[in-house]
Amino acid sequence: MSDSPPEPIDLADCPLPIAPHDTIQMGHGAGGRMTQSLISRLFRWAFDNEALNKLDDMAVVPLDGSKLSVSTDSFVVDPIFFPGGDIGELAVYGTVNDVAMAGARPVYLTAAFIIEEGLPLTDLTRVVISMRDAARRCDVTIITGDTKVVPKGKGDKLFITTTGIGVVTHPHTISGSNLQPGDKIILSGSIAEHGMAVLSKREGMRFEIPVESDAANLHPLVCPLVRTFGAGIHAMRDATRGGVAAVLNEFAAGSKVGIRIQEQAIPILPAVASACGMLGLDPLYVANEGKMLLSVAADRADQILTMMRAHPLGKNAAIIGDVVAGSAGLVSMQTLLGSWRIVDVPLSEQLPRIC
Amino acid sequence: MSDSPPEPIDLADCPLPIAPHDTIQMGHGAGGRMTQSLISRLFRWAFDNEALNKLDDMAVVPLDGSKLSVSTDSFVVDPIFFPGGDIGELAVYGTVNDVAMAGARPVYLTAAFIIEEGLPLTDLTRVVISMRDAARRCDVTIITGDTKVVPKGKGDKLFITTTGIGVVTHPHTISGSNLQPGDKIILSGSIAEHGMAVLSKREGMRFEIPVESDAANLHPLVCPLVRTFGAGIHAMRDATRGGVAAVLNEFAAGSKVGIRIQEQAIPILPAVASACGMLGLDPLYVANEGKMLLSVAADRADQILTMMRAHPLGKNAAIIGDVVAGSAGLVSMQTLLGSWRIVDVPLSEQLPRIC
Repeated sequence: MSDSPPEPIDLADCPLPIAPHDTIQMGHGAGGRMTQSLISRLFRWAFDNEALNKLDDMAVVPLDGSKLSVSTDSFVVDPIFFPGGDIGELAVYGTVNDVAMAGARPVYLTAAFIIEEGLPLTDLTRVVISMRDAARRCDVTIITGDTKVVPKGKGDKLFITTTGIGVVTHPHTISGSNLQPGDKIILSGSIAEHGMAVLSKREGMRFEIPVESDAANLHPLVCPLVRTFGAGIHAMRDATRGGVAAVLNEFAAGSKVGIRIQEQAIPILPAVASACGMLGLDPLYVANEGKMLLSVAADRADQILTMMRAHPLGKNAAIIGDVVAGSAGLVSMQTLLGSWRIVDVPLSEQLPRIC
Repeated sequence: MSDSPPEPIDLADCPLPIAPHDTIQMGHGAGGRMTQSLISRLFRWAFDNEALNKLDDMAVVPLDGSKLSVSTDSFVVDPIFFPGGDIGELAVYGTVNDVAMAGARPVYLTAAFIIEEGLPLTDLTRVVISMRDAARRCDVTIITGDTKVVPKGKGDKLFITTTGIGVVTHPHTISGSNLQPGDKIILSGSIAEHGMAVLSKREGMRFEIPVESDAANLHPLVCPLVRTFGAGIHAMRDATRGGVAAVLNEFAAGSKVGIRIQEQAIPILPAVASACGMLGLDPLYVANEGKMLLSVAADRADQILTMMRAHPLGKNAAIIGDVVAGSAGLVSMQTLLGSWRIVDVPLSEQLPRIC
């Protein structure tokens, strides 16, 4: 290795076109097209392996005779306390849900804290207690962690990175690359609540009816589904950053299929719809933290829906569309007026730092 | 949950005494007494479980019939490129070494990036390539990750959090709580190089002889030791944040024993010793990223030392002291002049943000 300036490295074979003045922009972290490009062209290129290349939010990997589901996420939500939750609870649910989306049982969590100098100790304590309570609700154990402090102005209150480890005991492939033409698309409940709750707090807005984050542990909803319907469940993903639109596009691209959805089938609370309308935000792109999308075999869809609706977290679940062969990667939606429009991947973010 | 301001939580049973004006300070992240207090009194209190309570840098936990070693660390080193390495390489070696210190074989790594808006893409690419190369050298696979971007002034170029997962196949307890009176303390090589390398770059200092970081993958050094000497190895830990002094104090406190070391036995490069002297830094407290301490059964110490010295990473290994019953938690050192002094845990940091 070398002293400064670092040796110029050979970027000739890096598929990310880099000009000397190119820099990271907010959109690279927003879950849209810019994020996808960075991941595919830099991280996938460099770290290239089967688990990573599936581009699910978790990796399913063999270890010592077992099959593990592993997921990691950094949480940088601003503000750290918001209606319905806080960064600590989010850091537990977010990662536990990603682990669970492989049909795994989440078991362990690690937690690494990057704290800005000057954070009130009461705030940190409140967050830690919130993590403890969320972990108990998820029945996961926080087994190890790390604490770093950065000077004032070099961080933003608190960033938390959690990594979750779960066990996969079923033999099925549940992956965003596993959608089949003919599948039904199920959405587990009403959308856009988390993003609107964070936004309202950050911008000091008051909606007529307060909107609360939907942050929740999805494993209890998922577990009996996988046990009962196994191979009938082709893909599951929680619709966080980038919202329902991002997940549907990831599904369509990952499985090289088309997806058609019906706008009228998508559950949304009136308060959330009106808040989105007022701000010109499309709720399809707004983050959720306790809602998931499934692609399931058509002949099991009604039974799966019935079982989901029997659980509090799935009581508003709905079949919102289906999977078609051809038009690979394309997501389209029939609007309330009956016309069809493309549900594209946004280039950048409408709401940064919502998770 | 509630809208702002968050509900006051009951901190009455929290053992961390919190006044309303108490805030996080740089020392809380420096690996000294303030960090220990925060971990013991907040995180351990809240997350209380057997794996965490051991306070090793990794957790050894059962999963589905296997025994895993899991570790997580956030890397916030400033600057991100320094003589002998960069933040990417550090984020791989640091976590892989923690996993290996349980005598485990590191297998998988996750990587979460918090990037400050405006970071040159060439810098990110250079770091990612460095991670790829380090992961190959460690024979670990980076299976999943996350990318977040924070606005300019809300981060500092790049923070990376890695989590490592390894398999423990031996039946022995290797832990900082497992030192035995009579043990010999072995140090694997010369100290304080990483901290001095980072400091020199950050402060724009030029030493007569340049000091390079010692960042390295310790697993190849550790693996044959555990296989050959098994139960003869009682504890291992890499001497990162807080240096050799911090690890010895963690060992002594964790096992309720005393440790006596000889200053003259501690290997240090002349250039590093003179740089430390010039700056008034005690090299015992300066971070390493490729050096480890072991506490081993006295009757195997010479054989272990011989095997370590046969490996390039252990060629300067030395027995630097021994473990005594009584004087629980106390680390003392006989200086070059023959007198004894206490090697205490520093309250705060001498060098912030070196990892």
